[in-house]
Amino acid sequence: MQKGNASILFEKPPAVGCWGCIAGKKEAEGPLGGGLDRTETDDRLGQETWEAAESELQRRTARLTLKKAGLKAADIRYLFAGDLLGQLTATSFGVRELGIPLFGLYGACSTMGEAMALAAVTVHAGAADRVLAMASSHFATAEKQFRFPLGYGAQRPSSASWTVTGCGAVVVENRETAAGPETSGGCAVTIAGVTPGRIVDAGIRDSMNMGAAMAPAAAHTICRNLEDLQTDLSYYDRIITGDLGEVGSRALLDLLKKEGLDLEPVHADCGKEIYDRKRQDVHAGGSGSGCCAVTLCARILPNLRAGIWKRVLFLPTGALLSPVSFNEGRSVPGIAHGIILEACSLRD
Amino acid sequence: MQKGNASILFEKPPAVGCWGCIAGKKEAEGPLGGGLDRTETDDRLGQETWEAAESELQRRTARLTLKKAGLKAADIRYLFAGDLLGQLTATSFGVRELGIPLFGLYGACSTMGEAMALAAVTVHAGAADRVLAMASSHFATAEKQFRFPLGYGAQRPSSASWTVTGCGAVVVENRETAAGPETSGGCAVTIAGVTPGRIVDAGIRDSMNMGAAMAPAAAHTICRNLEDLQTDLSYYDRIITGDLGEVGSRALLDLLKKEGLDLEPVHADCGKEIYDRKRQDVHAGGSGSGCCAVTLCARILPNLRAGIWKRVLFLPTGALLSPVSFNEGRSVPGIAHGIILEACSLRD
Repeated sequence: MQKGNASILFEKPPAVGCWGCIAGKKEAEGPLGGGLDRTETDDRLGQETWEAAESELQRRTARLTLKKAGLKAADIRYLFAGDLLGQLTATSFGVRELGIPLFGLYGACSTMGEAMALAAVTVHAGAADRVLAMASSHFATAEKQFRFPLGYGAQRPSSASWTVTGCGAVVVENRETAAGPETSGGCAVTIAGVTPGRIVDAGIRDSMNMGAAMAPAAAHTICRNLEDLQTDLSYYDRIITGDLGEVGSRALLDLLKKEGLDLEPVHADCGKEIYDRKRQDVHAGGSGSGCCAVTLCARILPNLRAGIWKRVLFLPTGALLSPVSFNEGRSVPGIAHGIILEACSLRD
Repeated sequence: MQKGNASILFEKPPAVGCWGCIAGKKEAEGPLGGGLDRTETDDRLGQETWEAAESELQRRTARLTLKKAGLKAADIRYLFAGDLLGQLTATSFGVRELGIPLFGLYGACSTMGEAMALAAVTVHAGAADRVLAMASSHFATAEKQFRFPLGYGAQRPSSASWTVTGCGAVVVENRETAAGPETSGGCAVTIAGVTPGRIVDAGIRDSMNMGAAMAPAAAHTICRNLEDLQTDLSYYDRIITGDLGEVGSRALLDLLKKEGLDLEPVHADCGKEIYDRKRQDVHAGGSGSGCCAVTLCARILPNLRAGIWKRVLFLPTGALLSPVSFNEGRSVPGIAHGIILEACSLRD
């Protein structure tokens, strides 16, 4: 089960039984629009504050995912969830009414990877038959938290990214023991293994260039994954990093080239996938915990289910800055968690 | 392994092999002073900012705990850690140099419980032979984050608590498979089971009375634990809640009395244990993620090792407010995670 220094390969890979995602109008107008389960045209989602809007986004996404799966909240044993805000404000108020025991997680934009890793370990351990992993972000709450309130009309450099207004959730389950309805008409995708990441700090202090701050962590986790599994890049149909964006993706390719690895043929990045950079004014690309979560549910999992890809390394990356650390002139530490996703047909 | 709706009992309980804690001068002057591994008389720990001081506290606690155990950072497969600050600022910068794959957690003052639950599940699953669980808080960073900078000299109501400057860390391991040195000269304490908690929101909006906001969550987790395990309060030598303080503890006793449970004979609370309320001006008691973590390492684990207690339900509680949610007039949702700790002699 343990592989190498940090990785885990599951003997009986937990299944991603069902998934759901909701995003905003801008995301719906992008390349992944067709994969969304629902679009919220009101950025406030009928709430009085931006934070309440993001909480509502989580609530609706969880409910929608459960409904798609034919499940009730009581069918979910544990919830692994997080967001970008201080003290996980969006999550705490968003999942309150679900009544599911909660593990609150913070990994910045890598949170969906962290949640899926812990969900898979917990289900594989037999500690739960079925859990939910979820992450969200909201453009307005993130700008207010990390940069400037929208009303200031601040300008943004081209290395800056655009925080996704969106939320994605996945049901992770043991198909042999989970009671209740079949959640997706047969096996779709499994979590074959995980490579939890460590913090890598390249000393970058520019909160408007988070891609560059996260690229070294992504490179580290990719190298460790290949080393732990004693394999090479050809093992994967795609390695899909989480919101490095245009600038960070280039940095990652350069870093891996120095290690003798040509990532380009198999590389994709959630931050580049979610918006059309030519048509939509998003600078370096998308970011936020919701960016990976939505791209996962709107493109990666459907492509695996459809057999277009057989094996993907899903690698959400996080920039572990805070408004306080930024104001105090600290660097931006990065982290990246690797999740090995496989089409079920691989194991038939 | 799964018990009832939310609990887990481990067939082969992971061991708490070693532990360490560091706290500040005020904590050293309190009843637990003799149990600290080290006292920091400089609240800044030689750093330029309060946040950097809390990071340094985590760094020193992790190193001290590893040293006590005769381990190197490379002997620890995963780290489960968190603090109270937005985006886990103290943790991100505190554990960076350790190079251990990190799961960042936010459960407010319940974080040590959340970390130990996930650590135990991970070790029991065979996904790691040895992990570290850690949580910290710092009086000055917490006051700055949640209330007022110290320089304002704001007055505090008697229901307010005093955030502990302290950090505690525990090594959780599978004694049969963990390589390397024996960490505490034979088995000391095991994690027999866990009851992860759900959010309970009693609608309290007073950030100066967090004990009352958390008491309903503590009551909920205690009831669920007893129900899941089909047992009663006499199963435990102590049920030790995490920083409800004087006001919250009274609320908890009242709530459980309505359920027909007389908790008083077995109840203790980390928020009441850590300071001498008569001698030290702390109002309702101690709080902060470090409060439970330090009380665990300075009193609970030593008492279990010494055979004074055989079985303890350690129940860190968290108040999931944020400065933003407070300013927006939201309520304070509570959460409590239960960890069943047993003296090894129980299983000899």
